[in-house]
Amino acid sequence: MGKLKVLFHVNEIDRWNFALGNIVNLISDVGEDNVDVAALANGPSVAAYADAEKVETMKGLSEKGAKFLVCRNSLKKMCSGGVVCISEENLPSFVSVVPAGITEIIKKQHEGYAYVKP
Amino acid sequence: MGKLKVLFHVNEIDRWNFALGNIVNLISDVGEDNVDVAALANGPSVAAYADAEKVETMKGLSEKGAKFLVCRNSLKKMCSGGVVCISEENLPSFVSVVPAGITEIIKKQHEGYAYVKP
Amino acid sequence: MGKLKVLFHVNEIDRWNFALGNIVNLISDVGEDNVDVAALANGPSVAAYADAEKVETMKGLSEKGAKFLVCRNSLKKMCSGGVVCISEENLPSFVSVVPAGITEIIKKQHEGYAYVKP
Repeated sequence: MGKLKVLFHVNEIDRWNFALGNIVNLISDVGEDNVDVAALANGPSVAAYADAEKVETMKGLSEKGAKFLVCRNSLKKMCSGGVVCISEENLPSFVSVVPAGITEIIKKQHEGYAYVKP
Repeated sequence: MGKLKVLFHVNEIDRWNFALGNIVNLISDVGEDNVDVAALANGPSVAAYADAEKVETMKGLSEKGAKFLVCRNSLKKMCSGGVVCISEENLPSFVSVVPAGITEIIKKQHEGYAYVKP
Repeated sequence: MGKLKVLFHVNEIDRWNFALGNIVNLISDVGEDNVDVAALANGPSVAAYADAEKVETMKGLSEKGAKFLVCRNSLKKMCSGGVVCISEENLPSFVSVVPAGITEIIKKQHEGYAYVKP
């Protein structure tokens, strides 16, 4: 059926481990050349991009083709709300910022990506 | 790619704030004329339709085109279970009742709506 | 619009009651001949397949056509992690094992199944 395409939507910090495990299993199961993987963080889950251990795992997966996205609205809100301030310049280099995560989630599905909420 | 279409599925009361924030961001990002938004509540989350503060926010969003749906099965179950009784006549006027929320969720996706679980 | 098709993704044990209630309502609403229902368990939710009460409900639904799937990776991980060991031979006979649940979730959506996260 051609390449599999999937967007993982992570909006709670404690769901990242599950999401990353899913991505590991997926790439291991079908091979990195047979899947387009994107993971999008919005809400409190954006804090994972400042967590060294998680970033290490993500980096390895990004080298196998997984894309990591983050919502700018959420970065701002987490900072103004006093939860965590991560400036865009300090994000890991493999992370891409999108203006509004929710718009990206919808567009990706309209482009044929499956949606998974770990 | 034409109008974006999205269904928000809210089944836990504490996910409404996140869902409503998502809808605010979405309409602000793409403009109310460029998106069809529906939010469907089933399970305990139906209680939000009796919460004055949330209803106020929903009302503002409904004036920008967002549709709010509620599952009749869930309204009955929450009442018989002693959680909260909301009669259909007492729902805010912008809320539409569907017989079975789960059927609506599936139909909307078959009609091309993206699915988001906030 | 033809037969409805839906995959329920259950990855937390406490979401099974909600998922099973959804499936009951769905079949009652549209009739078992008008829907293809699959429920996939990965993560800690696989333990439900060793819970007599839940298995009883699932069995009744399987007789109405609902398919129940379980992720082999998750069965192994739950056992090696000391959470629960369920051997494949001891699974209820109506449960099918898939090598990687995450792959199945994506494929089903690519085949036109709606995705629901209860």
